Amino acid sequence: MGFSPLIEKLINAFCCLPGVGQKTAQRMVFQLLTRHKEGASHLAKTLAEALDLISHCRRCRTLTETEICDFCSSDRRDETSLCVVESPADVLIVDQATGFKGKYFVLLGRLSPLDAIGPEEIGLDLLAKRLDEGLVQELILATNPTVEGEATAHYVSEMARKRNIRATRIAHGVPMGGELEYIDNNTLSQAFSDRKIL
Amino acid sequence: MGFSPLIEKLINAFCCLPGVGQKTAQRMVFQLLTRHKEGASHLAKTLAEALDLISHCRRCRTLTETEICDFCSSDRRDETSLCVVESPADVLIVDQATGFKGKYFVLLGRLSPLDAIGPEEIGLDLLAKRLDEGLVQELILATNPTVEGEATAHYVSEMARKRNIRATRIAHGVPMGGELEYIDNNTLSQAFSDRKIL
Repeated sequence: MGFSPLIEKLINAFCCLPGVGQKTAQRMVFQLLTRHKEGASHLAKTLAEALDLISHCRRCRTLTETEICDFCSSDRRDETSLCVVESPADVLIVDQATGFKGKYFVLLGRLSPLDAIGPEEIGLDLLAKRLDEGLVQELILATNPTVEGEATAHYVSEMARKRNIRATRIAHGVPMGGELEYIDNNTLSQAFSDRKIL
Repeated sequence: MGFSPLIEKLINAFCCLPGVGQKTAQRMVFQLLTRHKEGASHLAKTLAEALDLISHCRRCRTLTETEICDFCSSDRRDETSLCVVESPADVLIVDQATGFKGKYFVLLGRLSPLDAIGPEEIGLDLLAKRLDEGLVQELILATNPTVEGEATAHYVSEMARKRNIRATRIAHGVPMGGELEYIDNNTLSQAFSDRKIL
């Protein structure tokens, strides 16, 4: 004997969340159904509402319930520099950490030929159109420093070069506050070869 | 600037899940909205359906969408022994591990005066009625071996004693496959004083 069919179905539905397996899903389901019914009903409603209303900003591809997101529609942000990131969360991270006042473009992924993710899937056709508008003077590539992120940055920088737009890449090196002893060789060698004159 | 209001609301809604904070909720939301829309919509629907249909078994208090759960309605299970557990998940755990063929009673909690959880909150009035029916001959107390679980077991055993029903408690001791070196003192001392003749 097991849980009732509907409980089983709900547990399996929770397993689609990242990092959630059978046991965690089970804990979530029992907590929601016993102690947290209002929270659960709020979650169900909000999720349905979000799925209904949220789609991609037509200009930068980030997730938003408006046609054009706040970042793109703001006229206090500089149209001439465009920062390319992998995910909507990265927009916020860059914005809060750096004081960057330009616009963003969200790839919603990275080039990954093995997973059949090519230039179209990460919206590079839309980015090409944006660059062709002629406003962007600097393209800042803030994709993740992974193999795929680097390849994506390289690919996008070629797009910029063809249009005579300056492409820059965020610096790689030793993280602030870290100790050399604990830094991996790859990072340290990159930091060494990118050394700056003081 | 931040995420759009609806995304922010959805992230907060996910924070009600056990073990999920702001960052994890954010990851869940972006994964669901970008890569996993069908999964998300299935989750929203199933959760709403479950909240609507699932309630407590009228006999044992476990969660089920039927009035009486499968365990209680089965006539192949022995009515004379009743196993008392804290949560619906524990029913399955005991059932799969032990080969117990009796019935279950689910407290949906444990006595905890500090949190205002008294006998009524954990359904002991319903359990009293069940014991008064006169069918139960052995009450197996399988609450967790925590301070509150022990107190609950003790309280329930008193209910049984008043009705001349045998109350038993699952054994405490050294877990099978463990090493004495790593067992806490409390458990080891319990195992020592509960030693059996071979």
